[in-house]
Amino acid sequence: MAQEQKKFVEDITPMDVDFAKWYTDIVKKADLVDYSHIKGCMIIRPYGYAIWENIQKTLDSKFKELGHENVYMPMFIPESLLQKEKDHVEGFAPEVAWVTHGGNEKLQERLCVRPTSETLFCDHYKNIIQSYRDLPKLYNQWCSVVRWEKTTRPFLRSCEFLWQEGHTAHATAEEAMEETKRMLNVYAWFCENILAMPVIKGQKTDKEKFAGAESTFTIESLMHSGIALQAGTSHNFGDGFAKAFEIQFTDKDNKLKYVHQTSWGVTTRLIGAIIMVHGDDNGLVLPPAVAPVQLMIIPIAQHKPGVLEKANDIYNKLAGNVRVKIDDSDKSPGFKFSDQEMRGIPLRLEIGPKDIENNQAILARRDTGEKYTVCLDEIATKISELLDTIQNDMFNAAKKHVEERTFSVTDMEAFTKQLEETPGFIKAMWCGDEACELKIKDLTGASSRCIPFEQEKLSDKCVCCGKPADKMVYWGKAY
Amino acid sequence: MAQEQKKFVEDITPMDVDFAKWYTDIVKKADLVDYSHIKGCMIIRPYGYAIWENIQKTLDSKFKELGHENVYMPMFIPESLLQKEKDHVEGFAPEVAWVTHGGNEKLQERLCVRPTSETLFCDHYKNIIQSYRDLPKLYNQWCSVVRWEKTTRPFLRSCEFLWQEGHTAHATAEEAMEETKRMLNVYAWFCENILAMPVIKGQKTDKEKFAGAESTFTIESLMHSGIALQAGTSHNFGDGFAKAFEIQFTDKDNKLKYVHQTSWGVTTRLIGAIIMVHGDDNGLVLPPAVAPVQLMIIPIAQHKPGVLEKANDIYNKLAGNVRVKIDDSDKSPGFKFSDQEMRGIPLRLEIGPKDIENNQAILARRDTGEKYTVCLDEIATKISELLDTIQNDMFNAAKKHVEERTFSVTDMEAFTKQLEETPGFIKAMWCGDEACELKIKDLTGASSRCIPFEQEKLSDKCVCCGKPADKMVYWGKAY
Repeated sequence: MAQEQKKFVEDITPMDVDFAKWYTDIVKKADLVDYSHIKGCMIIRPYGYAIWENIQKTLDSKFKELGHENVYMPMFIPESLLQKEKDHVEGFAPEVAWVTHGGNEKLQERLCVRPTSETLFCDHYKNIIQSYRDLPKLYNQWCSVVRWEKTTRPFLRSCEFLWQEGHTAHATAEEAMEETKRMLNVYAWFCENILAMPVIKGQKTDKEKFAGAESTFTIESLMHSGIALQAGTSHNFGDGFAKAFEIQFTDKDNKLKYVHQTSWGVTTRLIGAIIMVHGDDNGLVLPPAVAPVQLMIIPIAQHKPGVLEKANDIYNKLAGNVRVKIDDSDKSPGFKFSDQEMRGIPLRLEIGPKDIENNQAILARRDTGEKYTVCLDEIATKISELLDTIQNDMFNAAKKHVEERTFSVTDMEAFTKQLEETPGFIKAMWCGDEACELKIKDLTGASSRCIPFEQEKLSDKCVCCGKPADKMVYWGKAY
Repeated sequence: MAQEQKKFVEDITPMDVDFAKWYTDIVKKADLVDYSHIKGCMIIRPYGYAIWENIQKTLDSKFKELGHENVYMPMFIPESLLQKEKDHVEGFAPEVAWVTHGGNEKLQERLCVRPTSETLFCDHYKNIIQSYRDLPKLYNQWCSVVRWEKTTRPFLRSCEFLWQEGHTAHATAEEAMEETKRMLNVYAWFCENILAMPVIKGQKTDKEKFAGAESTFTIESLMHSGIALQAGTSHNFGDGFAKAFEIQFTDKDNKLKYVHQTSWGVTTRLIGAIIMVHGDDNGLVLPPAVAPVQLMIIPIAQHKPGVLEKANDIYNKLAGNVRVKIDDSDKSPGFKFSDQEMRGIPLRLEIGPKDIENNQAILARRDTGEKYTVCLDEIATKISELLDTIQNDMFNAAKKHVEERTFSVTDMEAFTKQLEETPGFIKAMWCGDEACELKIKDLTGASSRCIPFEQEKLSDKCVCCGKPADKMVYWGKAY
């Protein structure tokens, strides 16, 4: 018991001292992840997986509302199939895991473990799409994918991760573009309203777009550290894949046409984003909408008569409306408090003999530390109000942080200096030339995050080369 | 359109003509599965996946009710880790897929794609279990696994399949045995009450038990063809894996002890079982409890005024209580009927101008073909009653089939003759000697399915060698 208690009471590295260490401390000490024997592959523990299940539940029902259907594709892609779309294979081949043997036999053709499933969906669509009546096809899949990364970090970049990948096929280019943007908006809605994480919506430059895509849209978020994180992407393929895979349909005018396709995905990386947008030096801080446990009841002096009974009464009253748990273990309240703080549980309810006498309980917020003494008759209402307040306040705090850490610059000196002093999003004009993107990356370490939908005219010259520029771009160092 | 309609109106092979062809016809024509380019790997299409989602939903909430938590383990197992438990590696090594390269580099150690995850869970349990306070650990995982099978059939035996695998660790042998049986009972409850499929509960012989298990329990079901199918298994590992992986904990008496473990799983194979237990020559027949669509509304003469409106009224009245859809496409009612029959939708509601005049609708059952004329005022109640009736009747029909196809024999001549004439479950006494199992398999093609919990004394001699025998065993040919 002593050993177990120590594990939690132990401090984590403050984020100002070492942000990377702070992050991995939380990941481990909030019991989100354990490391496995395979480099870069993580074990997602029950508490981490419960967050993923909540993410899945909300997104999956949103997808279904919009008419998407779930399917399951094989996890293997034959090498020849991966090679069908030239840009796509160039982008992914260097980072895939290859299966070469089945049992004791060498395979005739190598299979890669899916890094993404465009090629499999295309191959299937070719089989099942014949007529305009078969369109649109709105498919989605929840699965794990593998990308053989050299430098890995739990949730942010790992050799295997969990995700959903939507793959759709449409009769026209317009419909495909509509779908691409619709799904980006779903992701933005989800991040802002469920994860309380503000995002910048925009388009990737050609250099940063998905291998094989005509255009890639993205939502970009900013972490505590001022480092950017790509939180979700939505790709429009036009008819590029359709031509490579010969996916044609007979349209209403009886002509044979190529379909237009999209794909879009978010991953377990979102859990990393939650940690780095909301966490503090006491551990994880979870937005109520995605928290596996929204309220932890902690009985004080629970050996005294009536305390546990009252705690259980409250539990029974709340269960069903709130995701509530009661910690009636024989650990000390102090240990329970820090445990619940480390795990980022949004609200704590303390109830002891004194409180019972006064028909009240104490509610404590994880995000601000504020405490409230609440009459037990109003406890359910108050909790529900507070959870809404916390969700909103967390979003607003994160929004304020992004605003404070977003800087406009018009020359490279200011650009470099800003990133050295206080990293964040840099807004600057860009001429559209990839050479400038490369030079900026070289000079500052920042990549173009996106060309935001909401444009501002900061100047009429490229921040890098000084040539005419009409695109405002978000730049930043990124995970 | 002509082509699309043809696809469904086309007959499937009758099951008496060619059962295997009948099965694959349904799998394809009910749009459950498409074949992929990878031998033995299937694409699970939306309708098939929706059945799997219903299976998941019910089982997952049952597991959680019993205190199990979901986790996610890596999909790769290093060769050295797989080899830690001797029996286990011998059982699985011949049928795993090996990853040898990551990107362009050869891996230092081969990784197998998980065929099952005992070794990964053990490795993790060793890390996280120290004290009796950490026990029991009740983990489950939903994922895909790979077994490099030579002969494959969609759902029944494929190189990749979806499943859940429960893995638990307990302080005592008794608790582990309790858990093993508890989960077998959950599976039996699920098959009988949700899938309307009767099962025989029992223990596997040593020859048939899981590689590395101390004992394996199984639920065995019987298909239309009289061939048996293992529908789910639950394994008790004792402390075998714990010793191989050194998973020890300090017990209340302050002594270091090995944990006792279990694992248990069911797979997408259950969808194959549904097809072969309930299907008929018109296609799939789904038990209401697992059907993605329980009721299909088919408007008759839908171009006539008021028909579609009324159909939509009924739809709106039912949606939320029943999984209902309306087929208002411009296909003919005849086409819609056979489509809905092929997909095994339990109930069909027909509504046309005449029905509207009489304030009634026709309900037709997929399982028996019976039709009912029902007053629209009572339609919701009647549908809910009928769905219950169908669920019960389907179970009873399947139960009757198993009873009719279960035969007791006391000598090998009758054993062989019975399987040649009418295959089914054969009940016969067994001495416990593996040599007799092998001989029976050799003579008849039947394997021991299980030693059922419900024993009968058919004789006191082994059906094979004539030596004293006190175990009654179910035998059968199996998928």
